[in-house]
Amino acid sequence: MVAGCGCSATHVSHSADHRPIGVFDSGVGGLTVLAALEQALPATSFIYLGDTARLPYGTKSPASVERYALQCAAALVNRGVQALVVACNTASAASLPALRQAYPDLPVIGVIHPGAQAAVAHTRNRKIAVLATEGTVRAGAYQRAIERMDARVQVTSIGCSVFVALAEEGWGEGAVAELVAKRYIGALFDSPDAPDTLLLGCTHFPLLRKTLTALVPNGVAIVDSAETTARAVASLFADRSWDVQGRGGSTFLATDGPERFARVGSLFLGRLIEVSAVERVDV
Amino acid sequence: MVAGCGCSATHVSHSADHRPIGVFDSGVGGLTVLAALEQALPATSFIYLGDTARLPYGTKSPASVERYALQCAAALVNRGVQALVVACNTASAASLPALRQAYPDLPVIGVIHPGAQAAVAHTRNRKIAVLATEGTVRAGAYQRAIERMDARVQVTSIGCSVFVALAEEGWGEGAVAELVAKRYIGALFDSPDAPDTLLLGCTHFPLLRKTLTALVPNGVAIVDSAETTARAVASLFADRSWDVQGRGGSTFLATDGPERFARVGSLFLGRLIEVSAVERVDV
Repeated sequence: MVAGCGCSATHVSHSADHRPIGVFDSGVGGLTVLAALEQALPATSFIYLGDTARLPYGTKSPASVERYALQCAAALVNRGVQALVVACNTASAASLPALRQAYPDLPVIGVIHPGAQAAVAHTRNRKIAVLATEGTVRAGAYQRAIERMDARVQVTSIGCSVFVALAEEGWGEGAVAELVAKRYIGALFDSPDAPDTLLLGCTHFPLLRKTLTALVPNGVAIVDSAETTARAVASLFADRSWDVQGRGGSTFLATDGPERFARVGSLFLGRLIEVSAVERVDV
Repeated sequence: MVAGCGCSATHVSHSADHRPIGVFDSGVGGLTVLAALEQALPATSFIYLGDTARLPYGTKSPASVERYALQCAAALVNRGVQALVVACNTASAASLPALRQAYPDLPVIGVIHPGAQAAVAHTRNRKIAVLATEGTVRAGAYQRAIERMDARVQVTSIGCSVFVALAEEGWGEGAVAELVAKRYIGALFDSPDAPDTLLLGCTHFPLLRKTLTALVPNGVAIVDSAETTARAVASLFADRSWDVQGRGGSTFLATDGPERFARVGSLFLGRLIEVSAVERVDV
């Protein structure tokens, strides 16, 4: 029981922790993870930090990305978060050990492990296609994570960098997205040996989910690392599902212009972010 | 006359200066400017610096971009360049005064003024459409430059950010590029009041030139700021057009991975860049 909770809702909670969960990404892409988190944990508060001044992380060295991630995490820890979600593929691949060492008492959840785990659980024919940015494909983190879980799984990685621009332009659906998606993965399902599971290994790609769903043959599962990460976080906090009702909600921080964060971020979060609700911070 | 020139070609030169011209950009886009420069000044040597570790400049604050530009310029000046070409829209808008102050004896040429000047010279109906990235459109540098030259010109600026991703993916021509171009500018020419001049205000966009040419009505001029910048530089060095024959050639520096610079850069330069020809530097 939290003393002086001040919440007017009726609730029984033995481990109520009203501290927010911290979520960070290099930009707005991680807002797809936040959207899934808000849905999975409606009574929980979140602080989202987009390190937009230094995006993209994908082209930086792992050492730089680790340093940036530690700075983002410190900014969130200073605001009293109870857990850290690394809603960024590049930062998940480069910084989880350092973050866990820096904050041994804080749960730290990345996007790669939950996505890989869900894809491995879904595949029947042990063939998974990972769609990601060129940087993520080159770094090979999903491939390694999947192979560690089941070495018999065959992974095909496809760099789909144009999807990022389409998502940021608000063109995740429509004729352009269909044509681009066909060009990237159209040939993938021609073979009888085709993958039965498509893993969206970039936080931008859920905005193309409908387009991809319409394109893949029946029976092919689309696994979204945003959704699976949210489920992983929710299961960590399962005992709080009856927590303080009526709370929740998210706070937004960005290291660069709130205007673009709010405008493009609204597409990724799936609801309007007011410019005035975005606080510009240095990390 | 340069003492000890050592050049075996027959030439008459009263002001031969074999020092290279320095060219820099946040990434590979400026290689379209270098390609035009190599063509305009075949006997001149160039050093190209791509600040790939810190790209994109478009989302950074003008103060940061100015600082980066000064660092890039210093790296080139240390290698003995005789002029600086800022082959980057964002850096041209943010850093020319600081660069000219730092290097008062060095010609410093940006991409915005030559592009704007050529567009103003081309237009008959005084209507110009500027195609650029969202950041360049928002910063309004082309618009201001054009209006300073001729206040009666009406400028329509169109953000075409997806073009950048298409150019980097090597998809400047083909069905995807056509559809994206139609979506961005298809409606522009429906009106009798349509612009007669299209200014490509991003160093990536020359890769879509054929696609755009096929799309615009007859009589609409496409002005490319890469080409016009090269012409501006060539006219500065006009007295060297009979300079040392058989020299020329370019050297490549990048602040991040030579592999991607060489691969994607080859698309922009229009000829193969070997990975081994790219030197990784810190600036």
